[in-house]
Amino acid sequence: MHSISLQTHKRCELIDITSRINEIIAKENFRDGFLMIFVPHTTAAVTINENADPDVCHDILLTLEELIPHIRKGYRHGEGNSDAHVKASLVGSSETILVENGRLCLGTWQGIYFCEFDGPRTRMMNIKTVS
Amino acid sequence: MHSISLQTHKRCELIDITSRINEIIAKENFRDGFLMIFVPHTTAAVTINENADPDVCHDILLTLEELIPHIRKGYRHGEGNSDAHVKASLVGSSETILVENGRLCLGTWQGIYFCEFDGPRTRMMNIKTVS
Amino acid sequence: MHSISLQTHKRCELIDITSRINEIIAKENFRDGFLMIFVPHTTAAVTINENADPDVCHDILLTLEELIPHIRKGYRHGEGNSDAHVKASLVGSSETILVENGRLCLGTWQGIYFCEFDGPRTRMMNIKTVS
Repeated sequence: MHSISLQTHKRCELIDITSRINEIIAKENFRDGFLMIFVPHTTAAVTINENADPDVCHDILLTLEELIPHIRKGYRHGEGNSDAHVKASLVGSSETILVENGRLCLGTWQGIYFCEFDGPRTRMMNIKTVS
Repeated sequence: MHSISLQTHKRCELIDITSRINEIIAKENFRDGFLMIFVPHTTAAVTINENADPDVCHDILLTLEELIPHIRKGYRHGEGNSDAHVKASLVGSSETILVENGRLCLGTWQGIYFCEFDGPRTRMMNIKTVS
Repeated sequence: MHSISLQTHKRCELIDITSRINEIIAKENFRDGFLMIFVPHTTAAVTINENADPDVCHDILLTLEELIPHIRKGYRHGEGNSDAHVKASLVGSSETILVENGRLCLGTWQGIYFCEFDGPRTRMMNIKTVS
């Protein structure tokens, strides 16, 4: 299992981690099978989405913010980050991606994003390759 | 790895692909393990939901459309399909399903659905069995 | 494959199942690999979120209820539980979790939750360990 860390810089932020995942595949010389990415945090997540136009990340965060604003009447959790917990459960804490001939089987426009919903923080991800 | 293609016919549509997944299991004579379905698109997804009453699919699409309408003030992405990207990240681009004795371990009322959020288009899915 | 059952007591409820998953790992003396949890229902789901403050579960359910209320104009499904189907597809019917040295690789604050969206009912979960 590999653990990689990353520093986030805003409260809500999508960070392209595709190249970091590719580094693990290259380092292991991993050829065929699949790879699991797991986020061990409850106010962050991982998703796959467009890697070309950064405006897509902006629009995803905007929509999540409007649907699940930071403050909601009725929230009880004392830390004031209930929105981040909800976003984490909706986006999800893991991704499983196929690998063939040493390459992630992503579509042309797909990248892998770490989703920060309660930053800035230092975060971790666990990655496991399975052949 | 298997790739299957499908043609969608509406902008938003849920298409039952359970029988196509079963064809792969039968063709491989795959008995026990699990199966991964991966959608290599950023405006489509895959989910598991009710296979009996097609009104459930209608109601899922209706809810997503009302929560995440096609147009939202503040969207920056030039292609005008930001809603589809958000839906894709919330529903998710993959599913992992157990297989036992050559049968998908789905519940009685579960089917597997390809989720088109920006069609009509010709789409692909990648499927891998792991024993 | 293991099947475990549980009884839910409210219409919407998050139930911490981490200890039940740990029991399976202990019983199998499972050391290293990963574990899949699959919910064979279309109005329930599984998620990973905070295990410390139960108010987080309250706030997640509150948000889902406000975004996806029980009744919505336009719903066609005759059983009157369309909201539960939508929630199930957004939260997701499976989780994959790494296991190392006989321990679930969860973060400090993470627990595994069965998500009931149309209870009370008797529910099942299927669990498979893969080394």
